[in-house]
Amino acid sequence: MALRGAPLIGASAAYGYVLGLQEFLNKKKSSLKTPLKAWTELHFHLERVAKILKTSRPTAVSLFYAVNRMENQKNHFIAGHPASLSQALFKMLEQEAETIFEEDVKSCQKMAEDGSKLIPKEAMVMTYCNTGALATCGIGTALGVIRQSYAEGKIRQVYVCETRPYLQGSRLTLWELMQDKIPATLITDNMAAYLMKTEKIDAILVGADRIAANGDVANKIGTYALAIQARHHRIPFYVVAPTPTLDFQLPTGADIPIEQRSPQEVLRIGSSQITSGRASAWHPAFDVTPHELITALVTEKGIVEPPNEKTMGQLKGAG
Amino acid sequence: MALRGAPLIGASAAYGYVLGLQEFLNKKKSSLKTPLKAWTELHFHLERVAKILKTSRPTAVSLFYAVNRMENQKNHFIAGHPASLSQALFKMLEQEAETIFEEDVKSCQKMAEDGSKLIPKEAMVMTYCNTGALATCGIGTALGVIRQSYAEGKIRQVYVCETRPYLQGSRLTLWELMQDKIPATLITDNMAAYLMKTEKIDAILVGADRIAANGDVANKIGTYALAIQARHHRIPFYVVAPTPTLDFQLPTGADIPIEQRSPQEVLRIGSSQITSGRASAWHPAFDVTPHELITALVTEKGIVEPPNEKTMGQLKGAG
Repeated sequence: MALRGAPLIGASAAYGYVLGLQEFLNKKKSSLKTPLKAWTELHFHLERVAKILKTSRPTAVSLFYAVNRMENQKNHFIAGHPASLSQALFKMLEQEAETIFEEDVKSCQKMAEDGSKLIPKEAMVMTYCNTGALATCGIGTALGVIRQSYAEGKIRQVYVCETRPYLQGSRLTLWELMQDKIPATLITDNMAAYLMKTEKIDAILVGADRIAANGDVANKIGTYALAIQARHHRIPFYVVAPTPTLDFQLPTGADIPIEQRSPQEVLRIGSSQITSGRASAWHPAFDVTPHELITALVTEKGIVEPPNEKTMGQLKGAG
Repeated sequence: MALRGAPLIGASAAYGYVLGLQEFLNKKKSSLKTPLKAWTELHFHLERVAKILKTSRPTAVSLFYAVNRMENQKNHFIAGHPASLSQALFKMLEQEAETIFEEDVKSCQKMAEDGSKLIPKEAMVMTYCNTGALATCGIGTALGVIRQSYAEGKIRQVYVCETRPYLQGSRLTLWELMQDKIPATLITDNMAAYLMKTEKIDAILVGADRIAANGDVANKIGTYALAIQARHHRIPFYVVAPTPTLDFQLPTGADIPIEQRSPQEVLRIGSSQITSGRASAWHPAFDVTPHELITALVTEKGIVEPPNEKTMGQLKGAG
C-alpha cells in the first residue's frame, strides 16, 4: 500500500521492471564473460522480476498490462539483438516505462476534457477513494474530471467519501482538493445515501481497478454500495478509467480476482486499535459494480454510455 | 454522548428528573419555611430541569416521552397534595423512573421473543450501531432479537457494521456479542452491500430513535443506506423498537428533527485527527428511512408488517 491507484501502480511496475534489469546489470557487470550464459541468467532474472511485480496486487489489471508491455519489448529486443547484452536493452526498456507514464498523463487530460462535458453547471458532485494526482501519473481519472470541471467554473461543491478502512478520501482526495482550493466537504461513507436524498447531487464520479468485457467494474470496496444508492436516487454514476484498466479476457466482473487484505486493517484506524484485537473482521479491498448500475464509462478512447456487452465492443483492441 | 441508545436515554432522563428534585430538596431543606414560596420555587426548578433534559438531544423521542411522564406524575401529585412539599413527591417520582426502567426491560424481552420468530434457522444476520444492553435497560432491541435467536440456536453468524463516525458497532456491539460468545464479524459500513451480494444474508436488524405516524424511522446515520441496499438485494429489513419510540404527532419522517453534530467528529477518529483540521465536513447524527423500505416493525405491543399509514394505526394509543 506504499503505492496505490491503478494507473500509478501500472507505471510504477514498468519502472520496477527497469530497476530489476539495472540491478542485474550492476551485479553482473564484471562477470558477464560468456554471452550465452549471461542471456540465460538475464532471462531468468527478468522472469523473477515480472513474477514479483505481478503478484504484488491481484485486482488492478494496469499492473499486468504494464509488466506485459515491458516483457513484450524485452522479447522483441532480444529477438533483434541475439548476442549483445548491453545498456541498449536498458535504455529501450526505460523508454518504454517513460512511454507508459506519458500515455497516462495524456489519458488523464483527455478523460478530464471529455468527462467534463457530462457535468452540468453549478454542479454538486460526489467522489470516492482517491483518483487524483496521487493515484495516476497525471491529474487523475475521476478527480481529473472534477478538476477540469472546476477549471471550467462548473463545480459548486465536491463531497468526498472518507473511504474506510484506508481513508483514501479523507487523507488524499480531500488534501488534493484543498491544495487546488476546490470547495470540498468530507462525509463518512454511510452518509452518502442520506446526502443524495437531502441535497441535489448531480453526478457521482469514481475510478476503476479492472473492467470486464461486459463493463462490470472492480473498484475500491464501497463503490458498489454507492452505485446502488445512486440508482435509487436516479443520480448519474460515472466510472472514469483509462483503457489499460480494461480486461477483455474476462467476460464478466464475477471473474475479477478480489484482493483480501488483513482483517487487522478493519480492527484499526491508522495505528489506533478500535476494537478487540481478537475480534473477527472481513476485508475485501475491492468490490464489483455490475454494468447495469453504471451510467457511462469515460476512457481516453471515448465515452461508453451505457457500458454493456455490446457497447464495450467500441473499445476492443484498446485494452 | 456519555449516554446513548434511545431507550437508555429515556430511562436516564427520568432518573435525571428525580436527581433534579433531589438537588432542590437538599438545597432548600432548611430554608423552605413558607410552603407557598417553596412550591413556586419547586415548580420553576423542575421546569428548568425538564428543559435542560429535553434540549440535551433532539432526535430520540424516548427522551421527551420519559420527561413528559415525569412531569405528568409531578403535576398529578401536586394537584392531590396542594400544600405538602415532602419526600413523598420524591418517592413517587423515583417510583415512576423505576417503572419506566422496568417497562423497558420487559419490552426488550417481549420484542426479542416476538422478533426471533422472524429469524430463520442457520441465519446470517447483519446489524448496525449498538442496540444492546449498552443502549437499553434490558437485553436490547435489535440486538435483543439476535440474542434470543442465538439462544434458540438459529444464528450462524452476525455481521456488525462499524458505524462511523462514532464506531458504536466496533466498540460496543462487537464487544457485547463477544461477551456472549455469539459468532460475530466486523465490517466497515461500505462493505455491507458487497457482503449482501456475496453472502446469503437472511435479515438486517436495526433499532430506532423516533418513528413517525406513517412508519418512517429516524435512526443512526447510515441506516437509510443499509435499507436501500437491503431492498436492492431483497433482504428483509427489520426495525426493532419499543412503543415510546413512536411519535404519532409527526405525520412523516420529514418532520423528525435531525441532530447535527460537530464536523470535528468526522475529521477525527477517537482522538486521532485523520485529515486537515481546516477541512469541511458534514455530520448529521441520524437519517430517516422511509417506511416503504422497512419489512416489519417489531414493538413490544406487536409486529407491524409492513409499517405504513394504515397498519401503524394498530399501535395508536401506545406511543
